[in-house]
Amino acid sequence: MRFPLILCACAASLAAQSPASSNVRGNAFPSVDSARRVIFHIKAPTAQKVQVMPVGGSNGLGKGPFDMTRSEDGLWSTTIGPVQPGFHYYWLLIDGVPANDPGSETYFGWARQSSGIDVPDPTLTFYEPKDVPHGDVSIHWYRSQVTGKMRRAYVYTPPGYGANTQARYPVLYLQHGAGESERGWTAQGRANFILDNLIAEGAAKPMIVVMENGYASRRDETSGRGNEAFPDLVMQDLIPEIDKAFRTRTGRLDRAIAGLSMGGGQAMQIGLANLDRFAGIGSFSGAGARNFDRQTSFGGVFKDAAGFNGKVKLLWIGCGREDGLFAGSAALHKALEEAGARHVWYESPGLHDWQVWRNHLHEFAPLLFQGKSE
Amino acid sequence: MRFPLILCACAASLAAQSPASSNVRGNAFPSVDSARRVIFHIKAPTAQKVQVMPVGGSNGLGKGPFDMTRSEDGLWSTTIGPVQPGFHYYWLLIDGVPANDPGSETYFGWARQSSGIDVPDPTLTFYEPKDVPHGDVSIHWYRSQVTGKMRRAYVYTPPGYGANTQARYPVLYLQHGAGESERGWTAQGRANFILDNLIAEGAAKPMIVVMENGYASRRDETSGRGNEAFPDLVMQDLIPEIDKAFRTRTGRLDRAIAGLSMGGGQAMQIGLANLDRFAGIGSFSGAGARNFDRQTSFGGVFKDAAGFNGKVKLLWIGCGREDGLFAGSAALHKALEEAGARHVWYESPGLHDWQVWRNHLHEFAPLLFQGKSE
Repeated sequence: MRFPLILCACAASLAAQSPASSNVRGNAFPSVDSARRVIFHIKAPTAQKVQVMPVGGSNGLGKGPFDMTRSEDGLWSTTIGPVQPGFHYYWLLIDGVPANDPGSETYFGWARQSSGIDVPDPTLTFYEPKDVPHGDVSIHWYRSQVTGKMRRAYVYTPPGYGANTQARYPVLYLQHGAGESERGWTAQGRANFILDNLIAEGAAKPMIVVMENGYASRRDETSGRGNEAFPDLVMQDLIPEIDKAFRTRTGRLDRAIAGLSMGGGQAMQIGLANLDRFAGIGSFSGAGARNFDRQTSFGGVFKDAAGFNGKVKLLWIGCGREDGLFAGSAALHKALEEAGARHVWYESPGLHDWQVWRNHLHEFAPLLFQGKSE
Repeated sequence: MRFPLILCACAASLAAQSPASSNVRGNAFPSVDSARRVIFHIKAPTAQKVQVMPVGGSNGLGKGPFDMTRSEDGLWSTTIGPVQPGFHYYWLLIDGVPANDPGSETYFGWARQSSGIDVPDPTLTFYEPKDVPHGDVSIHWYRSQVTGKMRRAYVYTPPGYGANTQARYPVLYLQHGAGESERGWTAQGRANFILDNLIAEGAAKPMIVVMENGYASRRDETSGRGNEAFPDLVMQDLIPEIDKAFRTRTGRLDRAIAGLSMGGGQAMQIGLANLDRFAGIGSFSGAGARNFDRQTSFGGVFKDAAGFNGKVKLLWIGCGREDGLFAGSAALHKALEEAGARHVWYESPGLHDWQVWRNHLHEFAPLLFQGKSE
């Protein structure tokens, strides 16, 4: 006799679990169901204690660590959730030591290769790969004069780039956050699929998107956070390299810079200091308005609002309301409003996480490159 | 008073340690010295036992596991070696559980993301990034009809590909080994730098190199090793996709296929069954001559040696002498020789590892695409 499902108090727990799209191909775990509960598994017969550790204080998996339970044959497992949709970094703590889940692909975050889980939101498909033309992401190696080292940029070229050999494209420079790398916007952020879909819908202009590593130190520089030379790298090495190696449009109206968190600060810093080179700037969950002074902040660029408004086609600032940086971002918006500096302010539900930044890119990219080229 | 270095019995141990090039940027460990001794470090104050585990039976780090020693503040370390030059997979065993070293980048091998260390050989620079023009490696997404899924190929385009918009190029399909992925030939194998350097020297023809994942299952296929559909994928999906998306030469004289280990077997299987599409085939440390029968093996392609020799411009078979597959490879060479089938046999020192396969690619690529196009 089959137990009637309708009477089962835990009916929801019967929902089918599917492997996360962020897994290593062919691995069943971690898995997710439609109620966004996640099951983690790991074979660790010799461990005394195994836990799931969501990384960071703003993680859609919850606070953790979550204890896993050992079966007789040494398989540890636990079910958590419902969790937030989106991409979440996690580690498995093996007797307290952070380790990767062998079932997960690795994603560079928290200054190391970390496990990650992508929890679907069935109401959002804008970042999913669809049956539309796909752009390529080129791993482009070059030598930096500023750092003296070989570096690589991840460069999205839009569908048609290879075939339309006379066409030239505007360029968005797009930066990751602290502890991440040039791989983040494609692996975690799915920027390529977001652009593919927007371009297929006619909602965004075909554009090149350049994703570099926000850390750069001058030759022989050993102290500091390691990102001190990044503005010089962008202006002296990266932009000339991209304009040489790819079919770009090179006027200021066809160049924009944006980033998330630390990268949002870098976009503001680099973009606002170089308005002869950039006309579009985006800060996604960036640092906000600490000590903002209209006369002096960002080199005093906001002291002449009319001049600023004449030059900058798009200054876009967004933040999730559950983000610890929200108050600062909202204060920056208010200060810019008071200064008469034209900008787009975008607030939405959301944490300091990749689901918000995917959404930010999806909102931001359609607003770029709408004017005529210079 | 400083102890005079000249009197130190362990003078060699004073050689300077440098961070491995395979590390996460900015991480000092693992480190290597000029005597090829490697120091591993990990902070793991709560672990009872930590070991370095070279993965696989044919690993240039040695047999392992190697116990690490705990300092008072919970830092574990050990020095091993001298080790073999080249790229070696390893895990850290945390109380017996395989985990990644946070100081290392991750490299897909052994069906999971693993740590790896690249130990330099100062006498070999052919795989190092040099100040020569660099090709790009494009991550190319496409939908496979055979599998019903989105897949990605890593596609090397040679220096000048972007600028010479009328030029078309021959194509090498290049496969990884069991448990690896489409990322292996660039991340572990440095195929892009090997080609850059060969092309810069004029030693190899500029070519496109396509690296796909050797695992593919037909829609709804769930059993088997997971690579059953790979030949169909190559012939029905991948080649048409690459010929559409990239500026390829499409005649058989301009198409070759090669691979390492499992990928060598796949190259033999696919290439020899499709001599109307391929004129170059390479097997690097492949499976060898088990049950080789001139009349029936590989669809009987060797039974008419003159016909075979008229069609195949290059059949290349290589193996390291310390490889467990060496005897089989040497037997295949002998059987082909007896059959009168023209081929290149390449034996060298070396294990079943990436240092051998880097060398194989470096030997093989210059021999490709030397005839006229059809």
